[in-house]
Amino acid sequence: MDEAPDLVGVWQARIITLFPDAFPGTLGLSLTGKALHEGKWQLHTHDLRGFGIGKHRNVDDTPAGGGAGMVLRADVVGPAIEDAMRAARGRWPLVYLSPRGAPFTQAMARDWARSDGVTMLCGRFEGVDERVLEHYGVQEVSLGDFVLTGGEIAAQAMIDATVRLLPGVLGNAASTEEESHSAGLLEHPQYTRPAEWMGRAIPDVLTSGDHGKVDAWRREMSEKLTQDRRPDLWDAYKK
Amino acid sequence: MDEAPDLVGVWQARIITLFPDAFPGTLGLSLTGKALHEGKWQLHTHDLRGFGIGKHRNVDDTPAGGGAGMVLRADVVGPAIEDAMRAARGRWPLVYLSPRGAPFTQAMARDWARSDGVTMLCGRFEGVDERVLEHYGVQEVSLGDFVLTGGEIAAQAMIDATVRLLPGVLGNAASTEEESHSAGLLEHPQYTRPAEWMGRAIPDVLTSGDHGKVDAWRREMSEKLTQDRRPDLWDAYKK
Repeated sequence: MDEAPDLVGVWQARIITLFPDAFPGTLGLSLTGKALHEGKWQLHTHDLRGFGIGKHRNVDDTPAGGGAGMVLRADVVGPAIEDAMRAARGRWPLVYLSPRGAPFTQAMARDWARSDGVTMLCGRFEGVDERVLEHYGVQEVSLGDFVLTGGEIAAQAMIDATVRLLPGVLGNAASTEEESHSAGLLEHPQYTRPAEWMGRAIPDVLTSGDHGKVDAWRREMSEKLTQDRRPDLWDAYKK
Repeated sequence: MDEAPDLVGVWQARIITLFPDAFPGTLGLSLTGKALHEGKWQLHTHDLRGFGIGKHRNVDDTPAGGGAGMVLRADVVGPAIEDAMRAARGRWPLVYLSPRGAPFTQAMARDWARSDGVTMLCGRFEGVDERVLEHYGVQEVSLGDFVLTGGEIAAQAMIDATVRLLPGVLGNAASTEEESHSAGLLEHPQYTRPAEWMGRAIPDVLTSGDHGKVDAWRREMSEKLTQDRRPDLWDAYKK
């Protein structure tokens, strides 16, 4: 994907990975894929293997102090970061995807969508030599409290959440505003045709034609769902 | 992917999606891909479009009560769920990927890895008709507090986290035990060769050869990182 011309002003994701074939993956389909093909954002991969050492292009070595697994070398990851950041301009976060990082949130997606691009380092094995994270002041971000085999899927999730907030990517701008986590509440239940299914009817209020009542019902359901399912969000919302 | 024979005893992920081409995606690479090709788990997709209505195979309609976006129809999603659950046996969660759901955690991955399989419904648009979730008692699970264009990447993340816990998938079983979120603490820093890089040395304790000291240092660093970065995890750990 590195052949794409470097258009000034177009938001870019730059991914440092041992699995460049993972990209664009799902990001090449649906809304994010359409926007990618229309040039509304760009995706560049930087193959970590290309920065490997010796004829075997080694990228990792055993952990200092012993233990299971392999650690990505600072003198391999460092040059890859230099290469990926060469294209950076303006505000451009440099992120390492790691379960040790700050949890990714919608606020972070909004912040990244307002930046000029983002560079993401995808880990594998036991992690990355700590010195490379310190040297470049890399921001550690976690997709959540679970462990993945590598950072590639996490990168895709974060890029998806960010790209859909870029101007012109979502067909209907209203959609971004109304959804769960934008307003701080979980989304109310939705219904559509048919009017009855498996003996279950659409709630009367939704077919009443009274927009005030519909809005009030939706608000009430959103608040109730949030209180029931996510007391943590509800507490934050009330503040 | 539906040609794969239905082997009894092999863990299966069954995905209901409008984008079957998104699979296996990144799950077909690396450790999860190797395990998939070796038959240690199976992946089946169920194309929601195939259950669509009329000659245009419509899957969605406008929300009852008005508003932006489109809602997946109960009479389309229902038959797709029936089809996907036909293969289910034993303990087999039926999950809808939605930001309204319970947050996905490592504990959930462990639980799913002990099940016989999982069926995941990937949403798009404004969501799914609520009646289908009620009728089938679908469990709503969220990847995190952010909004994705659809459930496909979330499904891949959850499958990745689960599959790596299946017997024989990770080369070194010790790796699953030591990592972040398995022990309830964030992982300590890792270092590897070279001994010095950019004027930064590996901490002396790690090259001392004293395993007791190495273990104590790693423990201390894990605890310190967890306290600093994730006081919420630290509080839960101390209990």
